[in-house]
Amino acid sequence: MERTPINLADKLARFSEHWSPRIVARMNDYEFKVVKFRGEFVWHDHADTDEVFLVLDGAMTIHFRDGRVRVRAGEMFVIPRGVEHLTSAETECHAMLVERAGTVNTGAVVDGKTAAVDAWI
Amino acid sequence: MERTPINLADKLARFSEHWSPRIVARMNDYEFKVVKFRGEFVWHDHADTDEVFLVLDGAMTIHFRDGRVRVRAGEMFVIPRGVEHLTSAETECHAMLVERAGTVNTGAVVDGKTAAVDAWI
Repeated sequence: MERTPINLADKLARFSEHWSPRIVARMNDYEFKVVKFRGEFVWHDHADTDEVFLVLDGAMTIHFRDGRVRVRAGEMFVIPRGVEHLTSAETECHAMLVERAGTVNTGAVVDGKTAAVDAWI
Repeated sequence: MERTPINLADKLARFSEHWSPRIVARMNDYEFKVVKFRGEFVWHDHADTDEVFLVLDGAMTIHFRDGRVRVRAGEMFVIPRGVEHLTSAETECHAMLVERAGTVNTGAVVDGKTAAVDAWI
């Protein structure tokens, strides 16, 4: 039986849009996505689920109402459920997200950056 | 409020034991672990949960009863629930695992390689 690993750099090379996560794998009811972004996202939270960012290339800042954390390539961070946050990057950042399937990227906020929840690549 | 990213290389530098996953993060009821290994693990499966391997350094082979897949640094693979597998590496491999909290590394098999399920680093 033929089985193929998921190469994250190959997946990232297949699109260029920012703030547009693409699903690369599913594990139980969780999805692994890759995303490219630069600039600032929108303030939002996810009421019912934590969210993981693992930076693959570049660096990002996760802003909270009471502080922020810088996350660089090879580093990860878990944003707890219900905590308002805004992600940003001065130069293009590539990251892997881990989210419960169906999680909307902007939480309950509907915005120009709200992305499809079912975009596999 | 002080928040610190999780640096995977720093976590891996803090232990040397093989086949001994250390938890670095928790998201909902899932755990992210780092592990070092070389040689062959034991045949096992996880009846109720998929399992993710993301190779951080080196390369590994995941053997199945009907084939195998090679997974290199920057690549990931999802082992479906209930599928018997054996992991191996000719030279030391560093990987991140994503598992449901409480998942035993050897499944229902109890072996010299069965590791603690609650080892944070």
